[in-house]
Amino acid sequence: MTGFFDRHLPLLEAALQAVRERGFWSPFPEIPSGRIYGETAREEGEAAFRALCGGVFALPGHPNEALRGSETSPHGGALEIRYPAADPQTLIAAAQKAQAALAQASPEARVGACLEALVRLNRMSFLMAHATMHTTGQAFAMAFQAGGPHAQDRGLEAVAMAWDEMTRFARQARWEKPQGRAGSITLEKHWSIVPAGLSLSIGCNTFPTWNSYPGLFASLATGNPVIVKPHPAAILPLALTVRCLREVLVEAGLPADAVLLAVDEAGAEITQELAIHPAVRLIDYTGSGAFADWLREHAGQARLFTEEAGVNTVVIAATDDFAGMCANLAFSLALYSGQMCTAPQNIYVPESGIDTDQGHKSFEEVGAALAAAIDALLSDPDRAAGICGAIANPATLERVRQARRLGRVVRDSAPLGQGRTATPLLVAVQDGDPACESECFGPIAFLVAAKDADTAIARACDLARRKGAITAALYDRDETRIAGAVRAFAAAAVNLSVNLTGNIYVNQSAAFSDFHVTGANPAGNACLTDTAFVASRFTRAMWRRPVAA
Amino acid sequence: MTGFFDRHLPLLEAALQAVRERGFWSPFPEIPSGRIYGETAREEGEAAFRALCGGVFALPGHPNEALRGSETSPHGGALEIRYPAADPQTLIAAAQKAQAALAQASPEARVGACLEALVRLNRMSFLMAHATMHTTGQAFAMAFQAGGPHAQDRGLEAVAMAWDEMTRFARQARWEKPQGRAGSITLEKHWSIVPAGLSLSIGCNTFPTWNSYPGLFASLATGNPVIVKPHPAAILPLALTVRCLREVLVEAGLPADAVLLAVDEAGAEITQELAIHPAVRLIDYTGSGAFADWLREHAGQARLFTEEAGVNTVVIAATDDFAGMCANLAFSLALYSGQMCTAPQNIYVPESGIDTDQGHKSFEEVGAALAAAIDALLSDPDRAAGICGAIANPATLERVRQARRLGRVVRDSAPLGQGRTATPLLVAVQDGDPACESECFGPIAFLVAAKDADTAIARACDLARRKGAITAALYDRDETRIAGAVRAFAAAAVNLSVNLTGNIYVNQSAAFSDFHVTGANPAGNACLTDTAFVASRFTRAMWRRPVAA
Repeated sequence: MTGFFDRHLPLLEAALQAVRERGFWSPFPEIPSGRIYGETAREEGEAAFRALCGGVFALPGHPNEALRGSETSPHGGALEIRYPAADPQTLIAAAQKAQAALAQASPEARVGACLEALVRLNRMSFLMAHATMHTTGQAFAMAFQAGGPHAQDRGLEAVAMAWDEMTRFARQARWEKPQGRAGSITLEKHWSIVPAGLSLSIGCNTFPTWNSYPGLFASLATGNPVIVKPHPAAILPLALTVRCLREVLVEAGLPADAVLLAVDEAGAEITQELAIHPAVRLIDYTGSGAFADWLREHAGQARLFTEEAGVNTVVIAATDDFAGMCANLAFSLALYSGQMCTAPQNIYVPESGIDTDQGHKSFEEVGAALAAAIDALLSDPDRAAGICGAIANPATLERVRQARRLGRVVRDSAPLGQGRTATPLLVAVQDGDPACESECFGPIAFLVAAKDADTAIARACDLARRKGAITAALYDRDETRIAGAVRAFAAAAVNLSVNLTGNIYVNQSAAFSDFHVTGANPAGNACLTDTAFVASRFTRAMWRRPVAA
Repeated sequence: MTGFFDRHLPLLEAALQAVRERGFWSPFPEIPSGRIYGETAREEGEAAFRALCGGVFALPGHPNEALRGSETSPHGGALEIRYPAADPQTLIAAAQKAQAALAQASPEARVGACLEALVRLNRMSFLMAHATMHTTGQAFAMAFQAGGPHAQDRGLEAVAMAWDEMTRFARQARWEKPQGRAGSITLEKHWSIVPAGLSLSIGCNTFPTWNSYPGLFASLATGNPVIVKPHPAAILPLALTVRCLREVLVEAGLPADAVLLAVDEAGAEITQELAIHPAVRLIDYTGSGAFADWLREHAGQARLFTEEAGVNTVVIAATDDFAGMCANLAFSLALYSGQMCTAPQNIYVPESGIDTDQGHKSFEEVGAALAAAIDALLSDPDRAAGICGAIANPATLERVRQARRLGRVVRDSAPLGQGRTATPLLVAVQDGDPACESECFGPIAFLVAAKDADTAIARACDLARRKGAITAALYDRDETRIAGAVRAFAAAAVNLSVNLTGNIYVNQSAAFSDFHVTGANPAGNACLTDTAFVASRFTRAMWRRPVAA
């Protein structure tokens, strides 16, 4: 049963070429346009979302011991969707029953099913956009991209890497060892893929699909049944994904229960019980470092891939385009109200100010210009809502409130009309202030006065090494200092963006080109998608025997 | 400084092709012949070994706070070699000083140095043979192969895999994203290799080079300084390796202390202190499961690659060549007195006997024929010594003594003239006897009476899953049952050899073709050499910036 594989082979081959070359490539258009997705796609997507609200989510054949789910849109209103739910033991047992058939399927069958599912998920992108918007608080445009095509890109990237790795070595070989005059010894050898075991995918509230797809698709492609455990506040995007995958699996002749949904509710989470089960051999986790520590301590039977927390930094040493820099950073800070793992938090500026195309700017002038750029960006309420979206977790608003007291407020945060919202807060602190030495998740940025540019770079690298960082940005005109910073940030295992202006932002991480998270500082041990991310999900077993002479 | 790389590029390319195709290939001849290694190589190797005995081992520039070492040959006689030794903190500090230069060197520079060292080690194979023989107890022919060319093969395999992985993706790219009428956004992107940190290689007594080279060379090629911690009883082979590597590193313009020797003495081991140091991020370990458990519990800061213990099995269901099968198994049991991680331990035979080309053979007749085959193989004392070698660890002799009481002795173990020796003990037990359910390291095999062939296969697979196994063998004539066994052993993640007779043995694992240990049962988590073994030793960091229009 490799019809799906044959159909999508050109897509797979294009993805493989893209990951090797790492230029721009995406098969899933990021523009929510009717011309691309069909003239009625927009309305149909919204209608489909509305139809799901207030109902029971259908997952035919899925274990169903209770109906659970109590999602509320950060934009306002309860979704009132109830999902089939089951106890951890029931889910594990169902996954184990699917295990042998999935393991014994060919790589072509599994990869084909994954590719078909991604293509179908792409066609559902408008529905997924609404599902993502009303669980994460993202504005519609971002929910469409990050919940849909960009997540699908990351899923495809993982499938391509898994395929490349599964087929890296010959599947069979004739081993012929010369023995001098005695002729030769000849063996036939055959290798098969041995999946690691059950896989647990623990989703997050802010990017339920984008952060889950790589591990989910990598595990499935390599033959490991996946139990998808969404964040209780962001179930729908992953429930839609699980439904799509189960349908495709059945059509591919594979067991539907190779992908299961583990729904729980806040305060009654089942994540720990699932994570420590001996049959669970792979865990993909996005979330707090505290729970990652718990997993490291208690789920030692599983290979754990994490994306945790960190302190992303910007160092402003100098710029040739002061206005462009401020506008660029304003957008990076405002986008989804700083709720991206790639959003900057600490902005280091020399206390003596910087040289720019507009002449020297003092530390205070840089802060004021950044604040003004944010104000200008968000001056139109509709545009502001479209950039900032809403706040996923009420605790984030409380964090913003408390952060005001951590230093001098350069720009205050404010709500934005409808829903749970907050614009960026910008607080000036001194270098070394403990306030800015840990992650303050949300629309909170610190303007940090550093002794000089070199000190700022050293501080940013040191922080990355100690506390983790996923992104770093540098604005500078000194090529020697830039070269030094490139080496220093690499040694701290942070990806660095230099002198970004215009319509490209430090927050953005493009599949098939940017590796997301290096995996080598405390921000996480998983890198999307390098080889280690897929190669640890399976091993190979051989059988060999003599070839008759 | 890539002279070494350019010189050895054809070797690297041939190795890369070999690992992909997995047919027979080796650049390092396994025959200890003067025609290959030079007419005087044999005498010079032995003389060089004799010259080392009783002296201080020179490691120029190496930390040297004390002289340690008290190796004794299992064949008889103390080596009386004293090695420069230093405290763990001193070694860590020296490795850390070498870290930045090694990390910033190009992959070409590091890989070139590794290749040059392997070629030089190959030229030293006669010396290495004596060093291996008199620390492990292997007979000369085996010590030459396993300590020399076969270990070099495994080292080269790891270097080739590391190179392949470091160069798998473009090192720089032009990322050009179309923006419709707005033109396009163009970034230049650059990636560098970020090594994981310090690497600790913990050697074993029986195969000091063969089991250490993969991790040692993989870590070094990917930029991680390696502290080589030999077993206190088998220092010399690794000391020679470290000296060779340090010389090559210096010639390549790299720091000598990127490879360090950590010598200790039995009862005063420094392994634990090294293993738990926060700077140590990679550990390669071959040895007992008990110490592997200790490492898992205490050295969580490091990525741990292990080869531990297991129960290797043979299932005899039927054979077309009864004499050939018995002779083949006799050799597998006698070779290095069963002190190979790949040696069979449990031989399952249906209690009702088996069908063979010599007619039906009862359980007792199979046992008697195996015993007779061992006797015949070892009837000539010189040949016996050349196959069995000596016993590395006195505890093994005690284990043999106690194993006699575990069942009916089918063939007794006996000493062989000079040194600490023991021929194979063969003990008959009933299926399910706990005696045969854990590893009995050494020349001890159990002839296990199973209900029938299917039960025997199921038992062998179950044992592999629970206790680990590196090899399994099956003799059968029923193609349907063979196909079922292939699936069952693969699911238990054991490599299976079917119907081996003649001059090829289940114990043998050929570099570039056989993956050694699957990594997916309790016998170890490392697979020599799959991608996971090299890919986890480094990550990548990027920097990007806009390309001027």
